[in-house]
Amino acid sequence: MAITKALAIIAGVGPGTGAAVAKRFAQEYNVVLLARSTSSLDPVVQEIQSLGGNAFGIPTDISDAKSVDEAFKQIAAKYPGTAVSAAVFNASAGLIKKPFLELSAEEWNSTWTVNGTGAFLFSQAVLPLLVASKHLAHPPTLIFTGATAGIKAFPNSATFAAGNFAKRALSQSLAKEFGPQGIHVSYAVIDGVIDIPKTKAWLNDVPDAKISPDAIANAYWHIHTQPRTAFTWEIDIRPYVEKW
Amino acid sequence: MAITKALAIIAGVGPGTGAAVAKRFAQEYNVVLLARSTSSLDPVVQEIQSLGGNAFGIPTDISDAKSVDEAFKQIAAKYPGTAVSAAVFNASAGLIKKPFLELSAEEWNSTWTVNGTGAFLFSQAVLPLLVASKHLAHPPTLIFTGATAGIKAFPNSATFAAGNFAKRALSQSLAKEFGPQGIHVSYAVIDGVIDIPKTKAWLNDVPDAKISPDAIANAYWHIHTQPRTAFTWEIDIRPYVEKW
Amino acid sequence: MAITKALAIIAGVGPGTGAAVAKRFAQEYNVVLLARSTSSLDPVVQEIQSLGGNAFGIPTDISDAKSVDEAFKQIAAKYPGTAVSAAVFNASAGLIKKPFLELSAEEWNSTWTVNGTGAFLFSQAVLPLLVASKHLAHPPTLIFTGATAGIKAFPNSATFAAGNFAKRALSQSLAKEFGPQGIHVSYAVIDGVIDIPKTKAWLNDVPDAKISPDAIANAYWHIHTQPRTAFTWEIDIRPYVEKW
Amino acid sequence: MAITKALAIIAGVGPGTGAAVAKRFAQEYNVVLLARSTSSLDPVVQEIQSLGGNAFGIPTDISDAKSVDEAFKQIAAKYPGTAVSAAVFNASAGLIKKPFLELSAEEWNSTWTVNGTGAFLFSQAVLPLLVASKHLAHPPTLIFTGATAGIKAFPNSATFAAGNFAKRALSQSLAKEFGPQGIHVSYAVIDGVIDIPKTKAWLNDVPDAKISPDAIANAYWHIHTQPRTAFTWEIDIRPYVEKW
Repeated sequence: MAITKALAIIAGVGPGTGAAVAKRFAQEYNVVLLARSTSSLDPVVQEIQSLGGNAFGIPTDISDAKSVDEAFKQIAAKYPGTAVSAAVFNASAGLIKKPFLELSAEEWNSTWTVNGTGAFLFSQAVLPLLVASKHLAHPPTLIFTGATAGIKAFPNSATFAAGNFAKRALSQSLAKEFGPQGIHVSYAVIDGVIDIPKTKAWLNDVPDAKISPDAIANAYWHIHTQPRTAFTWEIDIRPYVEKW
Repeated sequence: MAITKALAIIAGVGPGTGAAVAKRFAQEYNVVLLARSTSSLDPVVQEIQSLGGNAFGIPTDISDAKSVDEAFKQIAAKYPGTAVSAAVFNASAGLIKKPFLELSAEEWNSTWTVNGTGAFLFSQAVLPLLVASKHLAHPPTLIFTGATAGIKAFPNSATFAAGNFAKRALSQSLAKEFGPQGIHVSYAVIDGVIDIPKTKAWLNDVPDAKISPDAIANAYWHIHTQPRTAFTWEIDIRPYVEKW
Repeated sequence: MAITKALAIIAGVGPGTGAAVAKRFAQEYNVVLLARSTSSLDPVVQEIQSLGGNAFGIPTDISDAKSVDEAFKQIAAKYPGTAVSAAVFNASAGLIKKPFLELSAEEWNSTWTVNGTGAFLFSQAVLPLLVASKHLAHPPTLIFTGATAGIKAFPNSATFAAGNFAKRALSQSLAKEFGPQGIHVSYAVIDGVIDIPKTKAWLNDVPDAKISPDAIANAYWHIHTQPRTAFTWEIDIRPYVEKW
Repeated sequence: MAITKALAIIAGVGPGTGAAVAKRFAQEYNVVLLARSTSSLDPVVQEIQSLGGNAFGIPTDISDAKSVDEAFKQIAAKYPGTAVSAAVFNASAGLIKKPFLELSAEEWNSTWTVNGTGAFLFSQAVLPLLVASKHLAHPPTLIFTGATAGIKAFPNSATFAAGNFAKRALSQSLAKEFGPQGIHVSYAVIDGVIDIPKTKAWLNDVPDAKISPDAIANAYWHIHTQPRTAFTWEIDIRPYVEKW
């Protein structure tokens, strides 16, 4: 009888951090990937399968309660009774950079919708699964991908700042509430440009000036393997040449 | 010909900080008070009038765009062409203290609605007035009343933490964007219990263990009087016996 | 019978913040000024006297235990039994900006000597006087002039960073220890260039781009007047055009 | 011809973090251990040797320039021309917990002596070796073991706070100065009681309430393996039950 591998559930999977984290965690777990579109999910699922891993992509609007609910029903149906060992909230709203007085109400809400409501819905869905999981190699872990904008607000980007501060606050509150239950909640301050297809043309004067998504994935994996005597809540990650 | 006094517009006026700030600023300005109910507004308006000041209360739902818009139309109608010298965002959502997994989506949004959306609507309405105001005794000022929960997230209160972090982020982004235009934006970390009617029974073992609203008002007034060479963004205020 | 005015004791008096603070506090108190040289002290003492205030300058090496001890003996002799209402530690080491590997041991210690040892000696001398003072108009107050370098370390200035972080730590520990005794301890983050004779040539492209020492002094005075229900530990002060 | 393994140099080696870090890094490197006494060094050296590693202990007073200089001469003599891949500053002054006014000048200086001067001397000795090292598996790394007291000052422990803030400042300044040269400088906020012989009797009501030194060592090793595209400056580490 085969022993079922535990799950890792990753929300926000594009060609950068999400894909790298999925591949890293797929070395040990069955991974479930949530993203808005199948075009984001399919290449990652295929790559993981081709490497011998097991991945399941579910198109999901992370900021929509019904969509998230539906996704977790699919997870339960496909992996009944399977422990969930790790969850990563990697979804992020796009940066809106414009004068404050030109923001529409929709723009003001846009970061909150993903980083606030999306993070809330994902956390409420996944934390009960993490709490219920037993006999795992590592403490159940929930990691939030954060940003410089989560600790420092810049001019002309009030929306992005507010949503990112809110996500960090959520992660800290959850770390304090669920830590004593043995759940490891972390927040990663990604402080720099990530090396993904759409940033290919940026910062090429200096070698290695962009953050490797694989390095972020390794950091997340390390955090996941920390025993409960030594949980990290916050870690910053930036290229060696970054000014800060 | 009478010289019209400049305005101070204060959102969030109850029997505590809002009333004290209104009274303090009414010593120099005509004050406009926004609060949800006339029962919050009327006693403050009457007290200020009885002291010889000028106050105008407008029932307003600060998190509703139409209501805020309507309030500022009333202000424009009553005080046409009048400079706005100061604005205070003192509205705050109530603390919801319960396990994260028991929060409803409505509860999750409740702090954001006031501290995020409300602060956004008020700022968008009042900043153009501050920017346009000239020949003032002090730089036009926008102060946000904040809380410990704006810099530190506690367990079992993720909602409150997220909304308060977001409000602080907004204030920092605005301080950086509007500072160079000569507008002074500040955030006050109110770290302790405020001495208001509903806290009468609390913390009475030690004298002066609760924050005097008048002392907060004096701090706001001091901030307002700072010249543009010496703006304060953040100030913390706590009773001498507070643990922190 | 004349009522003796309480004292304010200010360490670190040059032509900038120290002089401005001395003049501001001299409006209410007899001020004692400590600085290394009489050439720093004399003009400030004379200006205060000419304005009808009372000032007493004592040449003091604030980082030398004997010198500090001697200074406080002189204070006790000149103002026997007089309450001390306020103390300001405004001494600061000079910025050493050079590659870390070129620092000498003397240079490494230079900021600590003033911001660490000097702040310690001054605090130990003045806190007992503050604690013993009764019947004052405002809570006894000890304010430390700090800097951006107290919250953020820059490259090529490790010495300055270490000493300034240390001074801020001292102020926070003292705020927490002496606050419950009714003593108000504060730290001011001065984030920008102060407008003093030696910075006359700097930052003149934009008006008011340098911090007015008088504005710092007014902020200190405001902090001093806060009642014990509403103590501020930390306040930041920066010009409206400062990037941060 | 045998290829010489690179070195890891660890300052501050007792039975806790230092020993665990030494053992972890000895899996890949020859380790050099600095501690005041041979009684601290010998058991660690012997354990590493017994596990097949290579360790060299040098009795050193890390806050004494001559002693540090002598230690690095011994390292150069024993391992001529050998690359240094990692350095860990794990020395720490003891906590002095007493009222501020009872501190002696010696006590005031005691944390600075180790965390300030010791960290300076060690950094000045080891950074040139890290900068000169080439062809390493991982970027040359300098990690400082820090503490809660490095980010938060507590009452009745001003000395400890000042020295720990200073050490953190040094690490941040060095991270910014040497990062662009490819050197990875980190600071670890150890927020809790470490599980070592002298804390055996503490915190035993709850399992795993103390930090495992091996877990700290694993975190340091992870940081060391980060590529230069993804350096972590600060990481916090605390037991799951810690209040913060």
